[in-house]
Amino acid sequence: MVIYLITTGGTIEKVYSEQTGTVQNLDNKIDRYLSRLRLPDADLRVVPLMNKDSLEMTDFDREVILSKIKELVPESAPIVITHGTDTMVQTGLYLQRALPQLTIPIVLTGAMTPLGFEGSDGLQNLTESLFAVRLLNPGIYVVIHNQSFPVDRVHKDQSLARFVWKDRTD
Amino acid sequence: MVIYLITTGGTIEKVYSEQTGTVQNLDNKIDRYLSRLRLPDADLRVVPLMNKDSLEMTDFDREVILSKIKELVPESAPIVITHGTDTMVQTGLYLQRALPQLTIPIVLTGAMTPLGFEGSDGLQNLTESLFAVRLLNPGIYVVIHNQSFPVDRVHKDQSLARFVWKDRTD
Amino acid sequence: MVIYLITTGGTIEKVYSEQTGTVQNLDNKIDRYLSRLRLPDADLRVVPLMNKDSLEMTDFDREVILSKIKELVPESAPIVITHGTDTMVQTGLYLQRALPQLTIPIVLTGAMTPLGFEGSDGLQNLTESLFAVRLLNPGIYVVIHNQSFPVDRVHKDQSLARFVWKDRTD
Amino acid sequence: MVIYLITTGGTIEKVYSEQTGTVQNLDNKIDRYLSRLRLPDADLRVVPLMNKDSLEMTDFDREVILSKIKELVPESAPIVITHGTDTMVQTGLYLQRALPQLTIPIVLTGAMTPLGFEGSDGLQNLTESLFAVRLLNPGIYVVIHNQSFPVDRVHKDQSLARFVWKDRTD
Repeated sequence: MVIYLITTGGTIEKVYSEQTGTVQNLDNKIDRYLSRLRLPDADLRVVPLMNKDSLEMTDFDREVILSKIKELVPESAPIVITHGTDTMVQTGLYLQRALPQLTIPIVLTGAMTPLGFEGSDGLQNLTESLFAVRLLNPGIYVVIHNQSFPVDRVHKDQSLARFVWKDRTD
Repeated sequence: MVIYLITTGGTIEKVYSEQTGTVQNLDNKIDRYLSRLRLPDADLRVVPLMNKDSLEMTDFDREVILSKIKELVPESAPIVITHGTDTMVQTGLYLQRALPQLTIPIVLTGAMTPLGFEGSDGLQNLTESLFAVRLLNPGIYVVIHNQSFPVDRVHKDQSLARFVWKDRTD
Repeated sequence: MVIYLITTGGTIEKVYSEQTGTVQNLDNKIDRYLSRLRLPDADLRVVPLMNKDSLEMTDFDREVILSKIKELVPESAPIVITHGTDTMVQTGLYLQRALPQLTIPIVLTGAMTPLGFEGSDGLQNLTESLFAVRLLNPGIYVVIHNQSFPVDRVHKDQSLARFVWKDRTD
Repeated sequence: MVIYLITTGGTIEKVYSEQTGTVQNLDNKIDRYLSRLRLPDADLRVVPLMNKDSLEMTDFDREVILSKIKELVPESAPIVITHGTDTMVQTGLYLQRALPQLTIPIVLTGAMTPLGFEGSDGLQNLTESLFAVRLLNPGIYVVIHNQSFPVDRVHKDQSLARFVWKDRTD
């Protein structure tokens, strides 16, 4: 089956720069890690859309993501979006408002530590998300750290570096 | 939530012996790899039951597995079983016949290449299985390589080193 | 044989902080990586002296390093010092001036990318340095990336992220 | 500087076969691991000569190795040979007898656990050997586990999975 993977940047794709000694969103690196997964029944199509720290993501960037999703929805294939964790829920809620009649599952995921760094959760979250979109009902979810959350029921706990449940009325 | 992980051996747990130059089921090694996963909402309870190549698994061994499951079922927690891939389906069908009124999901998983060997699919399959048991309905499944199969609809393709669909009437 | 390993920080020991999204010298992490090396004939004694970015290293810090070395020299065991690459040569030249009659080899090493990050050169440089101090004559060296340099013949090329030869008269 | 790396097989190059569940010398895999090392000053030339378990190495195979070395010696570049550990010393002594006037260092190395398997010593031994041939005097050595041994002073301790000193008169 076809699965789309839209990449937008965030910690999951950050790389260490030897010249500056900092971690930055420079190059797309998800492909290198996807090749470590066995996906014999998935026709995975990676769409590198942007490569931004999610704290720098603008309203315009979110329109670009929405526009790409609207283009893909008619294919009825599920979609995974990699995204920085700081504004992942904000983007998800924006998509939820803009797509009230959604007929496919869309999963937002990311990482607390970049792919390829010791202790990274990136490959775990990618693995779970690519699995989850095959089972979940239509809707928008955050999938991370062994859990799936409807996007309007979750927020990031910055100090714990994880996502936790919240009431829908928050 | 509580998740049980029953380990029985198989390729996923094999280790390389420097003295013999062969891979064998010697020590339980799943714990070391589980610590690489972030499972903040799971109370994972590992039950090392046996450590056998699945081609050497006997009827008695399958009774031991069944007996352990019967002991755990009243807790209503989902169960993942790691198992050699060669007779994984055989064990699953045995459990299915013995547990016609099952009220929890049971997932069988394993690996084509041992955990910790280059190109291993072990951590991917563990990640998927621990995620799947939270979403799947009661029943017995094989979860591997981005897919979940009801146990009576799957068989191993030895030459391709993967699992594929089969008709229920096989 | 006894080998001393004095750790002072630098990129080789930096860790990624999930709270700040930056790499920092927080905890000693060399021990975890040393356990990946087989050193059956070495009695390796790790001395964690400080944990600083080498750009923040002061004259006082260098006196602390010198003082520790003077304490160890009478044991006649070779010494490896892990150090940030930016001021590694500066520290090495300071030690060379202060220890004109040195009777043991002292090797300075470090890394361009922290231990445990994809593409890290840290374990390679540690491996080479622990090997080099067993073969080199008394004196002070930088050992990195398959090469050993007398400390007064080397400087860091920041843009290439490597060390290169220089004339002694520089 | 030019360094030759002649590969002959042995545990260091073994791969796990998913079809047979055994480790075998099938494909050359050293290149993939060499790319993890930073060797900015080395012009490394890999010569894949054969790919054999060293217990299956014949007199003819050793003649092939000797012949290749005789061809390379005039270039005055040092040589590393990867080789199974079981008969590494035997091959080294054969080369020593055949090359009494040797003008370059030749280092034999290998691994107790294949490259890419958890706990492998392969990359450590390659790193040490590529470093050692730049420092050692002409002669034939075994370099492994932080040590260098003249080939007539070493033997493998099978039960400890390491090399140890022996008297030359053995």
